[in-house]
Amino acid sequence: MDFATPSHVYDLEQPRYFGAPVFPSHAPGFVYSLHRRHEQGVSEVRTSASGFVYMAEHSGTHIDALCHQAEEMRLYGGQEVNPQIQTPAGFTVLGVETIPPLIARGVLLDVAHYRAVERIEAGSPVTRGDLEATAQAEGMAIGGGDIVLVRTGNGAIWHDAMAYLRAGGINADASSWLASLRVRAVGADNIAWDEVGVVDPDLKVSLPGHLILLVRHGIYIIENLNLEELARNRCYEFTFICLPLKMRGATGSPVRPVALVPVHD
Amino acid sequence: MDFATPSHVYDLEQPRYFGAPVFPSHAPGFVYSLHRRHEQGVSEVRTSASGFVYMAEHSGTHIDALCHQAEEMRLYGGQEVNPQIQTPAGFTVLGVETIPPLIARGVLLDVAHYRAVERIEAGSPVTRGDLEATAQAEGMAIGGGDIVLVRTGNGAIWHDAMAYLRAGGINADASSWLASLRVRAVGADNIAWDEVGVVDPDLKVSLPGHLILLVRHGIYIIENLNLEELARNRCYEFTFICLPLKMRGATGSPVRPVALVPVHD
Amino acid sequence: MDFATPSHVYDLEQPRYFGAPVFPSHAPGFVYSLHRRHEQGVSEVRTSASGFVYMAEHSGTHIDALCHQAEEMRLYGGQEVNPQIQTPAGFTVLGVETIPPLIARGVLLDVAHYRAVERIEAGSPVTRGDLEATAQAEGMAIGGGDIVLVRTGNGAIWHDAMAYLRAGGINADASSWLASLRVRAVGADNIAWDEVGVVDPDLKVSLPGHLILLVRHGIYIIENLNLEELARNRCYEFTFICLPLKMRGATGSPVRPVALVPVHD
Amino acid sequence: MDFATPSHVYDLEQPRYFGAPVFPSHAPGFVYSLHRRHEQGVSEVRTSASGFVYMAEHSGTHIDALCHQAEEMRLYGGQEVNPQIQTPAGFTVLGVETIPPLIARGVLLDVAHYRAVERIEAGSPVTRGDLEATAQAEGMAIGGGDIVLVRTGNGAIWHDAMAYLRAGGINADASSWLASLRVRAVGADNIAWDEVGVVDPDLKVSLPGHLILLVRHGIYIIENLNLEELARNRCYEFTFICLPLKMRGATGSPVRPVALVPVHD
Repeated sequence: MDFATPSHVYDLEQPRYFGAPVFPSHAPGFVYSLHRRHEQGVSEVRTSASGFVYMAEHSGTHIDALCHQAEEMRLYGGQEVNPQIQTPAGFTVLGVETIPPLIARGVLLDVAHYRAVERIEAGSPVTRGDLEATAQAEGMAIGGGDIVLVRTGNGAIWHDAMAYLRAGGINADASSWLASLRVRAVGADNIAWDEVGVVDPDLKVSLPGHLILLVRHGIYIIENLNLEELARNRCYEFTFICLPLKMRGATGSPVRPVALVPVHD
Repeated sequence: MDFATPSHVYDLEQPRYFGAPVFPSHAPGFVYSLHRRHEQGVSEVRTSASGFVYMAEHSGTHIDALCHQAEEMRLYGGQEVNPQIQTPAGFTVLGVETIPPLIARGVLLDVAHYRAVERIEAGSPVTRGDLEATAQAEGMAIGGGDIVLVRTGNGAIWHDAMAYLRAGGINADASSWLASLRVRAVGADNIAWDEVGVVDPDLKVSLPGHLILLVRHGIYIIENLNLEELARNRCYEFTFICLPLKMRGATGSPVRPVALVPVHD
Repeated sequence: MDFATPSHVYDLEQPRYFGAPVFPSHAPGFVYSLHRRHEQGVSEVRTSASGFVYMAEHSGTHIDALCHQAEEMRLYGGQEVNPQIQTPAGFTVLGVETIPPLIARGVLLDVAHYRAVERIEAGSPVTRGDLEATAQAEGMAIGGGDIVLVRTGNGAIWHDAMAYLRAGGINADASSWLASLRVRAVGADNIAWDEVGVVDPDLKVSLPGHLILLVRHGIYIIENLNLEELARNRCYEFTFICLPLKMRGATGSPVRPVALVPVHD
Repeated sequence: MDFATPSHVYDLEQPRYFGAPVFPSHAPGFVYSLHRRHEQGVSEVRTSASGFVYMAEHSGTHIDALCHQAEEMRLYGGQEVNPQIQTPAGFTVLGVETIPPLIARGVLLDVAHYRAVERIEAGSPVTRGDLEATAQAEGMAIGGGDIVLVRTGNGAIWHDAMAYLRAGGINADASSWLASLRVRAVGADNIAWDEVGVVDPDLKVSLPGHLILLVRHGIYIIENLNLEELARNRCYEFTFICLPLKMRGATGSPVRPVALVPVHD
């Protein structure tokens, strides 16, 4: 049977609650309310409690589906967006339900550690050079089909919504480099992978990584990861598991990715 | 590295969409609306689309947390429900965020197959005898910490909401037996594990399995699984992975569990 | 002081609850959940209870704003729909907040009574001839600025969602006639003013009244009224008051219109 | 016909939008998203746009129903709160649907003007003495069945959510005095009628006005009014109209109250 080797499981999801950091377009983010309560004076000794969730699929730790982004109204693969594809209830192609369970080799590039800083802030984006140097320092090779996670260190301040939103991001050149390696997906411990609000001078778009990765290369992006424990333990290679919910037509899904590391490595 | 043995990945989640079967208490179930659209005439060639989800955490394939059920106002472990614990924003103890990533040995008890029926309907509940006989016929032993999935065959009619809700369930005796084996969690391909609307004559409650498993034994219940492919391939033993979202205070979480089976077994 | 003459107040709003009739595009309609509860064991003797509403603005008794409909991508007044006007958070022109409080002379055309039927069902739409004859029989003249309410009798079966949706509607010719009289708004006791699913042979659109009234003439439409009491008391002329909520950018608003009739008339 | 005297209509509702001031218990307040869009490339020249609202019934300008508050678990009239009355879908007694259309004589007590301040801030609550003196200065008598609106001047800063929440409120003694006059309802241009966060030393509760008015006297409270125009025009007496939505079981309703003043008074 598989899993014979005991593994340590790293939980890479940030907690979800109303007030957690959220990209402004997706406000109010995540709201949970408990309307069904355990109470006395009802007919049975067994009682139930449950609630309702109101949330943006791009809140908290989540994965972006390929329909989430377009370039000149074309999705990954060249499909032009039209009303038959982009509907009030979501997309009829490339929705998050088309993302298979992701189970692959994962690589952590701890750029914050490489730069010897606590966290990378806006204004000093992660470059291709940073990624290459970090990989080299870690002794990590990146192969096709791998999932690459980049640590900026901002996962440690998830509780400070204002500060968290000022995290540094990954620039276009770095995204292009990862794309050239044919990775399956990328992820980071910040709000939007890219640095927010910065327009790439060549592509002339904000969030250029989204264009390069999702639209041009069909590479998924996972945001708001918590990479602190992995980094603390210097785990740069692991089995990465991410299981997006099949919310038909949605442009992304909340996820709780995990990294499995054999106990004896 | 782990996962050296190639595995086939079985996706056990039913698709999520408005109109899918839902237990009446959790209506309207799942609603997704796309309010941010790719459109022309905006400033950049890169466009974004995204939406909002409104859903019961107990809709679609989901896991019940331990706070979901109480017996005489006491949760698993004896904690009495009070306003400090049961709040408008959810529970401060035993919320779904306290469920760790579940990665364990999984066992499928294909009771529908054992009974040689296409699906088990209301009125002929799954008994302890059914489970024991099925396990024996499959040559499966159940050990402590395992996750046991029971197939009624109703996962095949997820598209027919009315019929799906008339699925048969697992009776109290069967739930007790599984509890005695100290399983970690159970799951089934029906709306509520138990048969809906049937009051157990001894416990004098409806959904007795919920009382026995969640409240008395701290065993999670996963509902609305799709076990058809696993059953078709006669996969009765696998690595089961289920990663509930850490929605703070919630009584459950939508999940996309998977079963991993080594290619050569 | 105004209102010196005592008036009987007719409440024209249907009750709102989950499960009430709703036009399919606006499902699930109206959902209310109470997550804040009065409970004991808290710090004060004063307790609060409140909840959350999730609803389509076009559910229950409601008024359509002028941005709700377009003809060849142009709104009333010729404004072309574009991304600056039609945004994820609603419209920047002609949103429901631009509807002033409506206080005007109201006229009830009880067509069901004129036809001597309990209710008008799909297949026998209300025509211009029906409206003219009903007005004449009632001795009612319709002037510019008036608000005309048409009774089909279906308000009496609001509780029967399936049957209610099969109500008859008002045809294009009748809508055009009302538009020619320069009414301020119209309303009916059915789901969509027009008969659902019928394409007008001349305009080649479904819901032609919406095109004629909202887009071409800037006349508001109020749907799902309850006109039973007004009709029972043969009140064909009254002061009509309707106060749409200023939900910025929305395409309509739930309303509770009333009709005031002096006690001695 | 009534309304023969032309009237000026004062709109007393504040605009609704995401980000408007909201009492913390009711966050995120009001959210509107437009998921159905006018778009080209569909079958008809007529297109529709509409959305979904997610809101607390106590957001924006709204009225509190009698079930909203309790004293020692008893509602107005002595009804004890129990699970048959207080349900996940709202209250089965005293829900907002039991509030009839409110059409009554309205009186504005412009206390800010009386005190010669731009607005009344937290720390200097409106007292009984303030109300009596203001009424006298305005030459206004208050009778049974009247609806009394108190101006603190904070309606002018609705756009500044932080500052707005620091508004002054009406103290318990003032609320008691209004109750003794047997008014039908009261309203103010602040977030909660009472001053937020202040515990009344005698009643030992916060928001004592809520206890006195709603629970002990069955007097409705309307919050977040905009009284600026009324005040500017020194209109202290008018016909007040408020039409709460019949949201079954809800603890309040958004409203757009108006004040009608005859043009020649």
